[in-house]
Amino acid sequence: MQRVELTEKILDIKREKDLTWKQIAEEIGGYTQVFITCALLGNMPLPSAQAKKAGAMFGLSESEVKMLSEVPMRAPDTQMPPQDPTLYRFYEAILVFGPALKETLHEEFGDGIMSAIDFDLGFERQPDAKGDRARITMSGKFLPYKYHSVSDDVQQLGIKPT
Amino acid sequence: MQRVELTEKILDIKREKDLTWKQIAEEIGGYTQVFITCALLGNMPLPSAQAKKAGAMFGLSESEVKMLSEVPMRAPDTQMPPQDPTLYRFYEAILVFGPALKETLHEEFGDGIMSAIDFDLGFERQPDAKGDRARITMSGKFLPYKYHSVSDDVQQLGIKPT
Amino acid sequence: MQRVELTEKILDIKREKDLTWKQIAEEIGGYTQVFITCALLGNMPLPSAQAKKAGAMFGLSESEVKMLSEVPMRAPDTQMPPQDPTLYRFYEAILVFGPALKETLHEEFGDGIMSAIDFDLGFERQPDAKGDRARITMSGKFLPYKYHSVSDDVQQLGIKPT
Amino acid sequence: MQRVELTEKILDIKREKDLTWKQIAEEIGGYTQVFITCALLGNMPLPSAQAKKAGAMFGLSESEVKMLSEVPMRAPDTQMPPQDPTLYRFYEAILVFGPALKETLHEEFGDGIMSAIDFDLGFERQPDAKGDRARITMSGKFLPYKYHSVSDDVQQLGIKPT
Amino acid sequence: MQRVELTEKILDIKREKDLTWKQIAEEIGGYTQVFITCALLGNMPLPSAQAKKAGAMFGLSESEVKMLSEVPMRAPDTQMPPQDPTLYRFYEAILVFGPALKETLHEEFGDGIMSAIDFDLGFERQPDAKGDRARITMSGKFLPYKYHSVSDDVQQLGIKPT
Amino acid sequence: MQRVELTEKILDIKREKDLTWKQIAEEIGGYTQVFITCALLGNMPLPSAQAKKAGAMFGLSESEVKMLSEVPMRAPDTQMPPQDPTLYRFYEAILVFGPALKETLHEEFGDGIMSAIDFDLGFERQPDAKGDRARITMSGKFLPYKYHSVSDDVQQLGIKPT
Amino acid sequence: MQRVELTEKILDIKREKDLTWKQIAEEIGGYTQVFITCALLGNMPLPSAQAKKAGAMFGLSESEVKMLSEVPMRAPDTQMPPQDPTLYRFYEAILVFGPALKETLHEEFGDGIMSAIDFDLGFERQPDAKGDRARITMSGKFLPYKYHSVSDDVQQLGIKPT
Amino acid sequence: MQRVELTEKILDIKREKDLTWKQIAEEIGGYTQVFITCALLGNMPLPSAQAKKAGAMFGLSESEVKMLSEVPMRAPDTQMPPQDPTLYRFYEAILVFGPALKETLHEEFGDGIMSAIDFDLGFERQPDAKGDRARITMSGKFLPYKYHSVSDDVQQLGIKPT
Amino acid sequence: MQRVELTEKILDIKREKDLTWKQIAEEIGGYTQVFITCALLGNMPLPSAQAKKAGAMFGLSESEVKMLSEVPMRAPDTQMPPQDPTLYRFYEAILVFGPALKETLHEEFGDGIMSAIDFDLGFERQPDAKGDRARITMSGKFLPYKYHSVSDDVQQLGIKPT
Amino acid sequence: MQRVELTEKILDIKREKDLTWKQIAEEIGGYTQVFITCALLGNMPLPSAQAKKAGAMFGLSESEVKMLSEVPMRAPDTQMPPQDPTLYRFYEAILVFGPALKETLHEEFGDGIMSAIDFDLGFERQPDAKGDRARITMSGKFLPYKYHSVSDDVQQLGIKPT
Repeated sequence: MQRVELTEKILDIKREKDLTWKQIAEEIGGYTQVFITCALLGNMPLPSAQAKKAGAMFGLSESEVKMLSEVPMRAPDTQMPPQDPTLYRFYEAILVFGPALKETLHEEFGDGIMSAIDFDLGFERQPDAKGDRARITMSGKFLPYKYHSVSDDVQQLGIKPT
Repeated sequence: MQRVELTEKILDIKREKDLTWKQIAEEIGGYTQVFITCALLGNMPLPSAQAKKAGAMFGLSESEVKMLSEVPMRAPDTQMPPQDPTLYRFYEAILVFGPALKETLHEEFGDGIMSAIDFDLGFERQPDAKGDRARITMSGKFLPYKYHSVSDDVQQLGIKPT
Repeated sequence: MQRVELTEKILDIKREKDLTWKQIAEEIGGYTQVFITCALLGNMPLPSAQAKKAGAMFGLSESEVKMLSEVPMRAPDTQMPPQDPTLYRFYEAILVFGPALKETLHEEFGDGIMSAIDFDLGFERQPDAKGDRARITMSGKFLPYKYHSVSDDVQQLGIKPT
Repeated sequence: MQRVELTEKILDIKREKDLTWKQIAEEIGGYTQVFITCALLGNMPLPSAQAKKAGAMFGLSESEVKMLSEVPMRAPDTQMPPQDPTLYRFYEAILVFGPALKETLHEEFGDGIMSAIDFDLGFERQPDAKGDRARITMSGKFLPYKYHSVSDDVQQLGIKPT
Repeated sequence: MQRVELTEKILDIKREKDLTWKQIAEEIGGYTQVFITCALLGNMPLPSAQAKKAGAMFGLSESEVKMLSEVPMRAPDTQMPPQDPTLYRFYEAILVFGPALKETLHEEFGDGIMSAIDFDLGFERQPDAKGDRARITMSGKFLPYKYHSVSDDVQQLGIKPT
Repeated sequence: MQRVELTEKILDIKREKDLTWKQIAEEIGGYTQVFITCALLGNMPLPSAQAKKAGAMFGLSESEVKMLSEVPMRAPDTQMPPQDPTLYRFYEAILVFGPALKETLHEEFGDGIMSAIDFDLGFERQPDAKGDRARITMSGKFLPYKYHSVSDDVQQLGIKPT
Repeated sequence: MQRVELTEKILDIKREKDLTWKQIAEEIGGYTQVFITCALLGNMPLPSAQAKKAGAMFGLSESEVKMLSEVPMRAPDTQMPPQDPTLYRFYEAILVFGPALKETLHEEFGDGIMSAIDFDLGFERQPDAKGDRARITMSGKFLPYKYHSVSDDVQQLGIKPT
Repeated sequence: MQRVELTEKILDIKREKDLTWKQIAEEIGGYTQVFITCALLGNMPLPSAQAKKAGAMFGLSESEVKMLSEVPMRAPDTQMPPQDPTLYRFYEAILVFGPALKETLHEEFGDGIMSAIDFDLGFERQPDAKGDRARITMSGKFLPYKYHSVSDDVQQLGIKPT
Repeated sequence: MQRVELTEKILDIKREKDLTWKQIAEEIGGYTQVFITCALLGNMPLPSAQAKKAGAMFGLSESEVKMLSEVPMRAPDTQMPPQDPTLYRFYEAILVFGPALKETLHEEFGDGIMSAIDFDLGFERQPDAKGDRARITMSGKFLPYKYHSVSDDVQQLGIKPT
Repeated sequence: MQRVELTEKILDIKREKDLTWKQIAEEIGGYTQVFITCALLGNMPLPSAQAKKAGAMFGLSESEVKMLSEVPMRAPDTQMPPQDPTLYRFYEAILVFGPALKETLHEEFGDGIMSAIDFDLGFERQPDAKGDRARITMSGKFLPYKYHSVSDDVQQLGIKPT
């Protein structure tokens, strides 16, 4: 059984039962809707309590429930650059703003990255008289680059302008 | 003169004068630091008042000042997938969360996209006892897909689950 | 069930019943022939009234009818550059005229894009003594680029030469 | 001398003299603004009368004027998929609507292509209360596919459903 | 049913019945052997009289016969660059002689292309004492580029050196 | 000195002296116009008698004349797939007809290839009431595949249907 | 039936019957082990006497035996660059020594290629005190490039330094 | 000034002065030889004390010294897959062992990654009677994946089998 | 039977029986856990004693057991660059440190490579108060490049700075 | 100075002095002509005695002589797949015979590779009445794969069928 086949099965049942991701997330509980959607689409594992609830909801076998809790091979079939317009806009934001974000991040924090692992993602509708907006918030821990010093008594991480 | 040569010149002078993007943005004024950085790196035009200030700051010729206000060919040399780790983390966030964001967006708003044009980008440092975080906020107007109806009296945009 | 399998089924039945897209579009109604074709090929959702008619016409299951109304992952298998000569000519037109269109659009409207979402597409036969022509009309809302100003009282969108 | 260097020179002078494409096209005359822009950017030759006017306008050498009239290697540096958002929207329209256009074209005309050579391109601003639109009209001669018959007395071109 | 499955079926029956393309082309009739081979491999539609004969010859269903007459998505699986040596040699000829052919074509005809649609292809064995040769003749209608003049009374096509 | 710089120099002088490939080929002599064009563009060496004539015609240094006679690295910068429409049509002909040509060649000659080395290329204008045509003739020696037999007394080349 | 499925079947039976390529090649006879392996893997046709023996050995149907004798589409699924380390080393040898081999070949033979069609391949174990070696011998007929002379009485092939 | 030009300058001086990386690292001090090499090649910033020493050693301008301390765009020109055999072997190790490392890491630590930022790299010669070995040690902090819980009082990181 | 199907079967049984790689490696024995994982995932052969134990553990057929001992086509489906974040970090380490490792290796050993064949891989958890670390040790035999001398009495391998 | 500029300089002088690779190799001495050509083209270092002779022969600076002895970044600009026909034939031989060579190598030696580092390359002209042949001999040390056993007292390398 491949993870992608399990995703297809879950989507088939979601369609047949006329479920929304909101309903699914509320029933499974404990995590945000975006996270649970991400897990059911195969890019995150579901903790086992949640996987069991998902199993009950979608009528999955014990083996399929276990698969939901396995650390997956993430994004194996994601097409890059994305050809779907909704996905492409996120990609385009990186094309246009990525280099400026890099400069800004380094100036503020020094040398390092914004973690995509210790990372939160928020999604909300932002009402606006000129047309509602989608608001995506990404919050990642800043991780300073380790510099390999010869003496370990000084922990040497990142460069920060003074 | 190519836009990329102007960027190189600006970065050379920024280095020689020991300027930070923060100082540059404050002196040029009117726009956020990320936006002004983005413009000086060549992915946004600078409105002419700001371009003139930038010209004074960096000692640019009149022709170079004009070029700063031209609509640029955006992201002509941006490497995708990015090989720089700082940039890659943004790319990776799309790989992992992109499909779930698409599902969430459509369930909330119906068929359409989050604009990357009528789009705001916020960047801030988020103090955290376990290590400060970078917080990036993207807010884009939701644009419903136009469906091509035969009669124009009904404006047919997007599908929204009821 | 994958969307591409549903497309294959629809094309099989269209062939067996000797239907044309014109007949299909007339029976389903409400939208242009190009739009309905686009939806049945999997790149647009069909509004539910139309999806039900399509279901009746092609003998689809309830689940398949629902799938027709889902926002699809658009263009997942579209090959780029296209190897089919009919598709390639559209692609070639962008190669040859794209840069000039970009210049013209910016000079006329300022900085921004022609939306491919709030977008109409017309197709018609243009009789011509030297050989009939195909005439494709694309009309997209102009979307000015948002510039990120520090004070929100001034809505800063696009640059327009004066 | 490479054609791309001549383009860069023309853009430099356009910037220095504060010219618009509209002014340039009017001065050069005889062809549409989009066509003349396309030629000066290097994707079309300028007929020699027009090339001479362009030479006078931009102060070009005789050799550069001749180069403007040469059939160019078209689109040698055009990046595909385009990373510039304005160009990408045209590309995206093909991704989303291309397959439906192919079906529509074949149903209306039979087997063949819409020529990208015997091809007109119109661009205009379409005023609209909800926001002005860009309207691009492409009109190409339909060319039926030649089928290779054994006897030449019957000219066998394209398949047309009856 | 996908077109590629029909091709596989036809090749299976050709093998079982020990048919040659020559026999097939003679039985189907009306078109050259190369054309009929091209159609049965899926890159050309067969006119309906010929499709019916092919249906009888290969024992195809009515639906399969119709599919043979549909305008196909051409070359969907053709690998480029070709890894098969026989195909690669044609590709290599373009690599080596393509730029010279472009120069020659433009000098003889002016600006335009040799059509690959209104196009004949001949194949023959050329006896030669030093080893027989394959002789491929491609004859395509020259199509002059349309230049977009502002007044339509002058048909402006192609540039021709005088 | 790189071969591509010599090509650029030759094209500059050709433009300045208002030469056609026909005039150049006649003056250099001995080979077809397509061949001499191909050599001057850098994809074939010129035999030394011809290289000397070319040197006189274009005012080349002795070293440049020698370079014209060197076996070049062929097609180092040729873009594939070609983005120039004139070149693309040749490429498209392979996409559409390549597989059928392969079948035809093997049925006629057995297993092997049409040589692209022992290869002739003819180009001519074919007058036609419905519009003149370009006619390209490729004639390549058939080379049967060598099968590696254990005993060398039998030369084992190609498979030929009987 | 696709050729790749036949290969899979042959490898399954080879595994079940515990056969080595050496045993298979001896039983089939007439050709070298490398050649027969190459043919059974789908990159060469087997002459019909050998195909019949292979059919008996592997229990193939008549249709499968015929397929073994068909000229195949060679290397359709070969991944380049190879990700398998054994295959990669051959690829790497071309990367490192290819340009020097090209220079050496041209200096020795003049302009042309070493045929990969009229080509022998030897493989042997070379005992060596420091560790046995694999020795691969490639012998290909030198094919001089044809130059297209205007008069056919002089056969003009290749350039050879004197 | 581009970072790659500074690297070229440093390598030129290293060659002229006959320096080894070991000598350079000892003179600059404070960090391992691999780290300092990495920084001088442009993939790490040098802390400013070290950058000054490097400036003295290589005779760099003040601006070049500053550039050495800037956070660089990492790996902008690194070719992947690497064509250099020494680099390729590292790449190959990931191809062959990567999936097993992923499984091992997840089984030991749960869901997460080995950081390439908080990361040490050791290199040493390992004497061995059968031939000395290179020993590369990579030590990266394990970073558990953050799961987005609805209540923030429980920090939800990674999945760990029990 | 394809090797990838066998891997899928093994993973299915591992999931059903709730096995860890640690348990599997202990039961199969003789090799490290990483190696056995690598073999069961299809990138290494299992020696026959171990393959038999694996067969018993997973209930494999005799033919499947044999397949486990076959030298596999390694990494046939490994996606590069990896889109999975865990795998990507290894890839990134090569991007950032690869060139410095190359310099270091050559300075220490001279011209040659670190073998990825005569290669050991260690994996261990490294407890650390600031967060445990993963430690990967790669030890490969140094292989000096062979230089092709004209007289074989001098074995000429690698260049080593003195 | 980049290595590729030194290659260009050497080729310029070779052309001016009318040298052949044979003369160069004889003068430099000690290594085969293919090896010395390979080194001068930038894919191998020249031992210092030979580099000095090359320096004298080509009038190189001391720094350039040193660069000839540096371990180069090999094959940085080699285009793959090669578009030059002479190079392509070597590439094609791998496409067609690679998989069979892999099978043969493993059956003869067990699991491992033919080294491309401890590797000899011979080139010779093979007179033949039917046309002379080029004969390339590659001899590489067989390197058995290391299997990672838990106890080091048994050296576990490669799998060999018995």
